[in-house]
Amino acid sequence: MKTGVVILAAGQGRRMRSRRPKVLHPLAGRPLLAHVLAAARALDPARVVVVYGHGGEEVRAALADEDCVWVEQPEQRGTGHAVLQALPALSDLDVVLVLYGDVPLIRPETLGRLVALARTTPLAVLTAELDDPSGYGRILRGAAGRLVRIVEERDATPADRALREVNTGFLVADRARLVSWLDQIDADNAQGEYYLTDIIELATRAGVTVATTQPGSPEEILGVNDRIQLAALERIHQRQQAEALMRSGVTLADPARFDLRGRLEAEPDVFIDVNVVIAGEVRLAAGVRVGPNCVLKDCIIGPDTEILSHCVIESAEIGANARIGPFARLRPETRLADDTQIGNFVEIKKTQVGRGSKVNHLTYLGDAEVGAGVNVGAGTITCNYDGVNKFKTRIGDGAFIGSNTALVAPVEVGSGATIGAGSVITRDAPADQLTLARARQVTVPGWKRPVKGR
Amino acid sequence: MKTGVVILAAGQGRRMRSRRPKVLHPLAGRPLLAHVLAAARALDPARVVVVYGHGGEEVRAALADEDCVWVEQPEQRGTGHAVLQALPALSDLDVVLVLYGDVPLIRPETLGRLVALARTTPLAVLTAELDDPSGYGRILRGAAGRLVRIVEERDATPADRALREVNTGFLVADRARLVSWLDQIDADNAQGEYYLTDIIELATRAGVTVATTQPGSPEEILGVNDRIQLAALERIHQRQQAEALMRSGVTLADPARFDLRGRLEAEPDVFIDVNVVIAGEVRLAAGVRVGPNCVLKDCIIGPDTEILSHCVIESAEIGANARIGPFARLRPETRLADDTQIGNFVEIKKTQVGRGSKVNHLTYLGDAEVGAGVNVGAGTITCNYDGVNKFKTRIGDGAFIGSNTALVAPVEVGSGATIGAGSVITRDAPADQLTLARARQVTVPGWKRPVKGR
Amino acid sequence: MKTGVVILAAGQGRRMRSRRPKVLHPLAGRPLLAHVLAAARALDPARVVVVYGHGGEEVRAALADEDCVWVEQPEQRGTGHAVLQALPALSDLDVVLVLYGDVPLIRPETLGRLVALARTTPLAVLTAELDDPSGYGRILRGAAGRLVRIVEERDATPADRALREVNTGFLVADRARLVSWLDQIDADNAQGEYYLTDIIELATRAGVTVATTQPGSPEEILGVNDRIQLAALERIHQRQQAEALMRSGVTLADPARFDLRGRLEAEPDVFIDVNVVIAGEVRLAAGVRVGPNCVLKDCIIGPDTEILSHCVIESAEIGANARIGPFARLRPETRLADDTQIGNFVEIKKTQVGRGSKVNHLTYLGDAEVGAGVNVGAGTITCNYDGVNKFKTRIGDGAFIGSNTALVAPVEVGSGATIGAGSVITRDAPADQLTLARARQVTVPGWKRPVKGR
Repeated sequence: MKTGVVILAAGQGRRMRSRRPKVLHPLAGRPLLAHVLAAARALDPARVVVVYGHGGEEVRAALADEDCVWVEQPEQRGTGHAVLQALPALSDLDVVLVLYGDVPLIRPETLGRLVALARTTPLAVLTAELDDPSGYGRILRGAAGRLVRIVEERDATPADRALREVNTGFLVADRARLVSWLDQIDADNAQGEYYLTDIIELATRAGVTVATTQPGSPEEILGVNDRIQLAALERIHQRQQAEALMRSGVTLADPARFDLRGRLEAEPDVFIDVNVVIAGEVRLAAGVRVGPNCVLKDCIIGPDTEILSHCVIESAEIGANARIGPFARLRPETRLADDTQIGNFVEIKKTQVGRGSKVNHLTYLGDAEVGAGVNVGAGTITCNYDGVNKFKTRIGDGAFIGSNTALVAPVEVGSGATIGAGSVITRDAPADQLTLARARQVTVPGWKRPVKGR
Repeated sequence: MKTGVVILAAGQGRRMRSRRPKVLHPLAGRPLLAHVLAAARALDPARVVVVYGHGGEEVRAALADEDCVWVEQPEQRGTGHAVLQALPALSDLDVVLVLYGDVPLIRPETLGRLVALARTTPLAVLTAELDDPSGYGRILRGAAGRLVRIVEERDATPADRALREVNTGFLVADRARLVSWLDQIDADNAQGEYYLTDIIELATRAGVTVATTQPGSPEEILGVNDRIQLAALERIHQRQQAEALMRSGVTLADPARFDLRGRLEAEPDVFIDVNVVIAGEVRLAAGVRVGPNCVLKDCIIGPDTEILSHCVIESAEIGANARIGPFARLRPETRLADDTQIGNFVEIKKTQVGRGSKVNHLTYLGDAEVGAGVNVGAGTITCNYDGVNKFKTRIGDGAFIGSNTALVAPVEVGSGATIGAGSVITRDAPADQLTLARARQVTVPGWKRPVKGR
Repeated sequence: MKTGVVILAAGQGRRMRSRRPKVLHPLAGRPLLAHVLAAARALDPARVVVVYGHGGEEVRAALADEDCVWVEQPEQRGTGHAVLQALPALSDLDVVLVLYGDVPLIRPETLGRLVALARTTPLAVLTAELDDPSGYGRILRGAAGRLVRIVEERDATPADRALREVNTGFLVADRARLVSWLDQIDADNAQGEYYLTDIIELATRAGVTVATTQPGSPEEILGVNDRIQLAALERIHQRQQAEALMRSGVTLADPARFDLRGRLEAEPDVFIDVNVVIAGEVRLAAGVRVGPNCVLKDCIIGPDTEILSHCVIESAEIGANARIGPFARLRPETRLADDTQIGNFVEIKKTQVGRGSKVNHLTYLGDAEVGAGVNVGAGTITCNYDGVNKFKTRIGDGAFIGSNTALVAPVEVGSGATIGAGSVITRDAPADQLTLARARQVTVPGWKRPVKGR
């Protein structure tokens, strides 16, 4: 049974009030449509067709890496019309599953159950029991419990309205039957649109038994029509991610104040304090502690390392037993060895720091190689940029850099060297020696303090 | 129909446990009473009278700019007594609307509907349907649905208690009738107070049909008696503000972690990440992104500018396509042109920065004028203060300030000038030249490292 | 009536997926077991016995300061078996109260009511009414309302399952009767364990009237089996603490974004903004304001002092009317007098700062004594460490430290002294004089800017 997936992604999303196509609005840092594509992929279908419309070029560009067929629906003429555009691209397949680019929480397990029904019936639809079904089409079932009809809200009697089982729009159909049903539907309605849902009535009228299944949770079928709904879905998704992490052995100080926008691989006994944002691909080894208000992106942190509060870490790799922050900023290509200490108001970029070295206060290290057991004093600055080129600073093992030192790259400080506080080092400093550059201290005789209002 | 508004603001608020009068406790950064005054103003009434009592001078001082009549209620003798104090100040008007200084979420639309009822009846009251009506007086209605009586909780039968429609205390009355009713109420009750509510029974007994209307949401009638209620109302108000912003095209990463204490004018496609606090008057142009944990007050930010995490910005103006933070602090009178970059651990005060200039690390700029295309190196400090006076630093277009430089104001760095790293610049540096002030680097022969325990 | 308390703390907690014993997982910064011990202590019992098992040595080490008897349960053979291990240590007492190391929110008031029942009956159990009783044993009561039996979920009829009163496991018993009942229970069940609950049936069969009482809130009896439950209990506990603080006169901008891990003593009219974390022992005097995203640990802050956003303060003491932050880091042994101002990107450690002194920007003060009325310029660094020893810096009253100054300790700056910007001060600077160490400024003739790609 060769399955094709059609994802309807042409809706304009007027209520988003955005220049951006609705399906590109991000949920957990990725476009809505990317979530749906990932769910589709998990089924390993023969082909995925995305029907795009509004802002189409932007949609295609944003998802250029996806292996799917793009079909344009130039005019918005309804979901039935949209699926019709996609069918020529699926003519060699057996069944067609219809998904929605703005319904991002749908789970592969649910879709798997739905698709499995296609083995025994030409049409299966996903229904859901909602506490508040208002706005949705209700599922009317006959005596034997068989789906008879879908009643839209506007046509519903009070008895119909009390029904809590609704049509989600998700369906799977035999491709050939789908083509013939779509040929029969019309646009005789208030919107003048072709509704995919109309095929259900055609099927039941033709004597087809429409099979149904339900999602694991009603949250899976929630769609995004405005930014209030987008925010609601973001929170549902974040809560689900947080619960999965807690189940795997991560302590979250407050699951309602945790954001994961990407993938977190965390070993047991990781502790993540309140209000942490994690993005990209992050790996936290056992015993890592992340303090409040940290932002971590694309980084790897070794066992038992502690990230104190208010750190921003991006594209960095940190060893074991390190202590970082508070108020540390680690920028791309930072590599810190085990037992390193990085303190407050320190920025590190494209720099390696060796085992046990300390950079504790008010420092900028850029394009540097720092050995093991080095102490970098407060207020140290690597002058790595002359306005056009960047240069490297090398500091040997066991060196001691006095406070308020400027290291004008390219420059090398030898192993065991000491740099006197307040120096501007422009030439290499030899190993094991004291090097300094310092003006003579003088006290000015007879000097008077300035007075107000000159 | 000339309308006067009376706002009862004399309550002591013992359960607040505060030295501050209850009506001055802030909701979204403004006193409770200011919210009620704003709702009253929206009706465009002929006069607003505030009845104050406890901490009265402090109340008047805090709201000195408000155009209202202040009437003192020297003793706390109940709501009826309070309104009575206000009536002489309204003797030329037709109807009187009674509001409460500690019920801040009431909406002008609701008050408008209530006042409109005064055209047809001498007394109209606002009632509300509550899920949990306990503590409130219940509305008893007769066969024709007409309000018959209000039953206080303490006098209520079990059947009365099951009633969910309650008296909110808000009412509008014909002024002359109100005067006569208030003259008839007494203080024969446990508290020995005159209750405004008692006029409702007088009215119905006199054959008056008491009209009613309800608020758009029951939240409007919630009052503040302690700080738990204050916090609950703060959250309701913040959620309402957040939803209005989302509807207008702003994405909030988490509406439950967003605080607006003032007014935010945001164009579509602004993105505000978690835990941002916005105060005063803030304008964010289209495409602005505000990172997690930022605090913005009284500022204007141009299109597509990105504020990274952990920034504190106050009374600043930023152009388009700028990139600020993380950990940037912009203080009053900062003006950043388009395409500027301000990096981590940078403080800027009373300073203009020209187009495309970069101030990326560990810098303090105060009282400076920085041209376009300038690069300010890490650790640069403007020494703008001599202990009594402040002086200006001027940096011309295209200048390059080497790292760890102190610029001792008043001083000027010419266009295209380069300042060598680690310099203390005390005199003007000419354009297009390299200027530096740097001690000679020496290595000390025979020097030994200090040893432990001296 | 001499009372002994048994705390069952031997459970492995497999679902925590942790190397750490379950009862050591922290709630509000303290081990679960420490919360239960505190509740037990509040009853002032004759003895507390903790039955430990899994990870026992770690448990004993973590709670070594507690005055209790440790009894090992080497094999996990059920709650009845666990209590049996503890009884020899209680042979001189009258009644035994059984608590659980993983049920941390139980209140002393509830336990007091339960223990009081032991005066009149040999067995009393704590029951609770739950909205969702699933998973718990239901309480079956007879005609007179007397507890008849406990039905476990697996044995419950649909009618039993509808019962919402459940067995909490907490009970108090006459010691001698408890011994005899425990001797009679067996391990004839699916788990092969001895269940403490089985004594209830033995008691009722023996004609004992089992007394019951209920907790003040059902939340008290919630246990921790996995990290999702741990997080849920953390939030309940935090909300309770927040409400107690608000009742006492503290305003919390958002009680759902406040974490207290220790003890906060706050006078009235303290304001705590969103997302603040407080740990250890903290005292905040009247009128203190704490800005968003601050982390405070073990500190004392004087009246009307304002802590601006993003500060991290640990083991520090701050006087009245001070202004700290944003982005200030105060480390242990910092003492700031009244009216001090500490600004952004400033770190202070083991330092006293005198009245009215200002340290406003990008500074590190370590091991210093700063007098009153001192102005410490931007970028000032105390060089307090030579790689092995730490030295003191002394700055006299009224001194003015120019920006970007390095003070190489040990060094003293006299009262009223001025230090020129950009100096490295290695010797004492006399009072009331200008001292500086500064290289001559030169402009290099004929110098050309570097060009790209060398």
